[in-house]
Amino acid sequence: MITLWELKGRGERRYSLFSWRTRMALRHKDLSFDTQPVHMSDKAAIAFSGGKTVPVIRDGESVVRDSWKIAEHLEARYPDRAPLFGGDIGRGVTQTFNAWVDRALVPAMLPVIVADIHERIDPADDGYFRESMEKVLKKSLEQTRNERGEAVLRLGKLLEPMQAALKRQPFISGSGPAYADYILFSVFQWARVMSPQELLAPEDPLCGWRERLLDLYDSFARNVPTA
Amino acid sequence: MITLWELKGRGERRYSLFSWRTRMALRHKDLSFDTQPVHMSDKAAIAFSGGKTVPVIRDGESVVRDSWKIAEHLEARYPDRAPLFGGDIGRGVTQTFNAWVDRALVPAMLPVIVADIHERIDPADDGYFRESMEKVLKKSLEQTRNERGEAVLRLGKLLEPMQAALKRQPFISGSGPAYADYILFSVFQWARVMSPQELLAPEDPLCGWRERLLDLYDSFARNVPTA
Repeated sequence: MITLWELKGRGERRYSLFSWRTRMALRHKDLSFDTQPVHMSDKAAIAFSGGKTVPVIRDGESVVRDSWKIAEHLEARYPDRAPLFGGDIGRGVTQTFNAWVDRALVPAMLPVIVADIHERIDPADDGYFRESMEKVLKKSLEQTRNERGEAVLRLGKLLEPMQAALKRQPFISGSGPAYADYILFSVFQWARVMSPQELLAPEDPLCGWRERLLDLYDSFARNVPTA
Repeated sequence: MITLWELKGRGERRYSLFSWRTRMALRHKDLSFDTQPVHMSDKAAIAFSGGKTVPVIRDGESVVRDSWKIAEHLEARYPDRAPLFGGDIGRGVTQTFNAWVDRALVPAMLPVIVADIHERIDPADDGYFRESMEKVLKKSLEQTRNERGEAVLRLGKLLEPMQAALKRQPFISGSGPAYADYILFSVFQWARVMSPQELLAPEDPLCGWRERLLDLYDSFARNVPTA
């Protein structure tokens, strides 16, 4: 049995985008797991991992932290299950895609939804969340809410190449979903779990793609508490 | 023997970025080819392909146009040679990367180098090039030169995730080069062949990566006429 440590939001919301990559990867490989929700401010709960951020998994004797390292671990440990990368080239290009999502897309999504997230985190994290986010964004949460219109436009422009790709193929990874899809999906699932804003119009190729992701594994990602 | 149709610049310069993807893919698969330089304004020369743009290849009885379709053709026709994609997932994620380069990176590089390109195209294309580029850019070539500083900053910001990826692995595709590397490289080779500007500082991870690409196949891409 595998255990996943992930962030606990208000109620039963699980909002760590990086943990969503791991959740989807575990389901992709048809592996059972249970979860340990932790507060963002509670570093002691995951100190055993050697780091300060989720996701962390324990898989038998192995403790692995960092969503990318976890994906590599699962691919190496369970090579006979459905592939996340499909070989060295797939893994390499997926790692480049991971860098683009983390360094271009996540910073563009954050100002769009951060004020909504703040309203849905566990109350125990309230001060910690506000302080750390306002430091990253260099402005108050209230100011980000006022400037959301421009942030939505910037996000839309950044996503245009993804829309173009999804007009040519049903998944980021081609004809079927693989880890690159979960990387991109994690950003939209983060938004879906924590923000009531609908960011994708029905005619957007990303909307149809997200629906396909939400349908996977008996609607695993669809049937969770959302905003 | 394979024949490649590509753009002819002033002197012996070959500057079509999309044709550079095909050139590198052909060398990757260790396939011999000769080239047919054509003027950008001479659509009659490639009318046999059914399209108006290079690259076009003739490979035996097959005529294939569009750099992406050519890469798929080569991978399918020569499966026993070095892989460009390494399977379905690699091909899918590489196609998504192709969309990002074409729709985000190429439009960001164009205003940086377009005035330099104009000085190095074949004189027969002078009017055609100016007219089509000024239509795309919605400003004169002279104006793009004046605004180049801002364009360089925008380009640098866009490339930041690629720098991060190349700190973790030597190639865009992982431990060795594959088609995703040639997609990104084509943009820098376009600049190198047609512009005297040095866009990458020596300490930039992209600079070391570009050197590795220039070294491939007996310095195939290094030993060509440049700006």
